[in-house]
Amino acid sequence: MPELRKDPITQEWVIIATERGRRPSDFTQSSASEPERPEFSPTCPFCPGKEGTTPPEVLAFRNGANSNVSDWWVRCVPNKFPALAIEGELNKRGLGMYDVMHGVGAHEVIIESPRHNEDPATMSAFQMAEVVWAYRERYLDLRKDSRFKYILIFRNHGKVAGASLEHPHSQLIATPMIPIDVVNEIHGAERYYQFHERCIWCDMVRHELEQAVRVVSETEHYLAFEPFASKYPFETWLMPKSHQASFAAMTRERVVEFAGLMRDIFGRVSRCLNAPPYNFAIHTAPFDREDSDIFHWHMVIMPRLTIAAGFEMGTGIYINVTTPEDAARYLVEAKETTEAPITLEVSV
Amino acid sequence: MPELRKDPITQEWVIIATERGRRPSDFTQSSASEPERPEFSPTCPFCPGKEGTTPPEVLAFRNGANSNVSDWWVRCVPNKFPALAIEGELNKRGLGMYDVMHGVGAHEVIIESPRHNEDPATMSAFQMAEVVWAYRERYLDLRKDSRFKYILIFRNHGKVAGASLEHPHSQLIATPMIPIDVVNEIHGAERYYQFHERCIWCDMVRHELEQAVRVVSETEHYLAFEPFASKYPFETWLMPKSHQASFAAMTRERVVEFAGLMRDIFGRVSRCLNAPPYNFAIHTAPFDREDSDIFHWHMVIMPRLTIAAGFEMGTGIYINVTTPEDAARYLVEAKETTEAPITLEVSV
Repeated sequence: MPELRKDPITQEWVIIATERGRRPSDFTQSSASEPERPEFSPTCPFCPGKEGTTPPEVLAFRNGANSNVSDWWVRCVPNKFPALAIEGELNKRGLGMYDVMHGVGAHEVIIESPRHNEDPATMSAFQMAEVVWAYRERYLDLRKDSRFKYILIFRNHGKVAGASLEHPHSQLIATPMIPIDVVNEIHGAERYYQFHERCIWCDMVRHELEQAVRVVSETEHYLAFEPFASKYPFETWLMPKSHQASFAAMTRERVVEFAGLMRDIFGRVSRCLNAPPYNFAIHTAPFDREDSDIFHWHMVIMPRLTIAAGFEMGTGIYINVTTPEDAARYLVEAKETTEAPITLEVSV
Repeated sequence: MPELRKDPITQEWVIIATERGRRPSDFTQSSASEPERPEFSPTCPFCPGKEGTTPPEVLAFRNGANSNVSDWWVRCVPNKFPALAIEGELNKRGLGMYDVMHGVGAHEVIIESPRHNEDPATMSAFQMAEVVWAYRERYLDLRKDSRFKYILIFRNHGKVAGASLEHPHSQLIATPMIPIDVVNEIHGAERYYQFHERCIWCDMVRHELEQAVRVVSETEHYLAFEPFASKYPFETWLMPKSHQASFAAMTRERVVEFAGLMRDIFGRVSRCLNAPPYNFAIHTAPFDREDSDIFHWHMVIMPRLTIAAGFEMGTGIYINVTTPEDAARYLVEAKETTEAPITLEVSV
């Protein structure tokens, strides 16, 4: 019998089609089937030596003092084909019965490594921490722009997940409004808070640790688990165990710890599902709620193993063919067996 | 400058990235690149002669009197791998902090033609009308089941759009709750009604006919246009010009007229975009609002030309790279030039 599960935050129902239950080997989407990438690609605009082909950098972690040269290990640049334009005012206006405004915002690329063939499943823990630190730096810089209300940090991995360039990179888009999905999460969390006077994500952390059937991995301060009403097979959430509304409130020490958990999880996902295409997004509090008792930041990893089709697009109800409990078990088993020595030293 | 446009119903913002503006030939997704289909496929479970390989039919339009034989032209069967199970009660219950119920519902397949290689872009107007009539019949039958609150009729065309079988078919899923996207549309339409005391879709029909920049085609009682805040390039809506809440309220005469407009539009979409993969869904009123002054049924066609990725999945904000006004112009130009004689006679 399939099961209908309700997302306790957004109240969205999800169909868990247990009888169609799919194991990792049943999924055929894999970015491993794409040609193997070299460490350096002469035609790649993000590889070292091509600094002149991107818009001038807005941040880089490098050894020397000169901008736009090749001694960097993480580099952030404006997107050459931005979805939103950095210049201009909103100019909100009506157009007949409709509402419109200028597409003002920021759209940046975080180039995660000089090496063309690295990604969060294979890079060093140090490199991962540097990437997350760059997210934070760019967030804090763009946050000063009073035209913006929200910043989404996200990653598209593999062609099926919408990545148009191979070189490892994440993206960030600052928007002049709070995105509807964030609004819906806040409304849901507010309803819960009014009833229980507790943060729903804090309750979820306690509940998942107690139940211990959907937990994948944890560190002292961070938890990775499969949410009860997962929309996608192997959907995974990473978040702080103690309440924190804004991603950018992490200290350097915590960034290093969180990046270690990311490295662990992306390694598991890659081993378990044969390097699947995926997206991730960091849901953080809007600027005006960075100290909120209600919102709790979380990273959502969405492997692209199945295709959302007419039913999902017409109803908002997702059909998930792997139970979160099964997915958690597979990911727990996919632990790295020959642990490479993890370098935790940080030099910025 | 990109433009932010607000969906007047759901209040969702969409980014219309005018400067990335893509023409039909810029999109490479095409189901025409899949191998050409024969009129009959010996391995296809939906081709005539294979009636025994599907679950027993629940409806068929055929010449003879015997069920499950090969003289049909439209045939409806339960889905062999249903997302929701037809037997059982809901058994709503709590599970720790979460809510769950049995996945009870109906999941049926409408086999649109005995010919393996037909589809709404190529079938006769008569055949299209018979398909839509079958939608209505199945809707009215399942509507009697008191466990259900909503029925979605939808279609997945091409592998990229989630179709697992080539043979032309649509699907229908009856759900025991009103889907969240429908709830959101109703809430939006209610807000508008409270303010204006008019149906927002009726206003949209008038506005679009007046503006005449997003209209693609029309018949006496039905309109096809590109919505102002289209989420997808070439997103197209078909709906009655006069108020009607439920799709199932159409008379036979109107079904024939509406099917003619569908045939016209799917032909245009196919010619314009080289047989693209697409989904469509019919948004109709929930059972308890079939006489609503607020809800107005509409069919939404969503070509799958771009990939929704981390940004869309993390915010709910879609990036559309073709303006609806451009899309409308291309679809207006894609009119069928050598009109095949349209048979309007109907024999059921």
